Amino acid sequence: MSITETLDGVAVSTKASVYFDGKCISHGVRFADGTGKSVGVILPAALTFNTAAPEVMEGVSGSARVRMKGETEWKTYAAGESFNVPANSSFDIEVAGEPFHYICHYG
Amino acid sequence: MSITETLDGVAVSTKASVYFDGKCISHGVRFADGTGKSVGVILPAALTFNTAAPEVMEGVSGSARVRMKGETEWKTYAAGESFNVPANSSFDIEVAGEPFHYICHYG
Repeated sequence: MSITETLDGVAVSTKASVYFDGKCISHGVRFADGTGKSVGVILPAALTFNTAAPEVMEGVSGSARVRMKGETEWKTYAAGESFNVPANSSFDIEVAGEPFHYICHYG
Repeated sequence: MSITETLDGVAVSTKASVYFDGKCISHGVRFADGTGKSVGVILPAALTFNTAAPEVMEGVSGSARVRMKGETEWKTYAAGESFNVPANSSFDIEVAGEPFHYICHYG
């Protein structure tokens, strides 16, 4: 469970995406091969995210409790851990205390 | 006054810097030559930032009112505009309505 500290050789969007009144803020990055990801942070909050494309959420600092759509169980993910979200789905996420920093991998 | 939409050929830090309880969030970027900058966003708030090294703040979306240390006048900076902050100084910044997105150039 190594932690990805930097994404190298990318173009980063200078304008952030601001969700939930700023409780989640991310910057898009694009690799030379066209692959897109984002780096973001979720402040202490309880939020629900909807997905269009499938995503892999990789924690890089802090931790979060996550419950996938249709499930009753919450699982906790820390830095160095990832969870998958299918397309056209949603998940609940709760962050308490320290912010949760993540990389979102698309597709 | 063109707007810088991306920073290309960089390594971006996956962990954000979170200031003022999340009212300002930035991600560090590093160019191949070692130059460091950051991309960040300030949510609606009235904040005071202290500088160690000199900085150039370049707006990329939204606008902000800024008052440099020791001055009485506020100036408004929009996307495509920049202001300089000397070393070992400070500035007051007020953002209202839409978030202010910026690039911070160091040195």
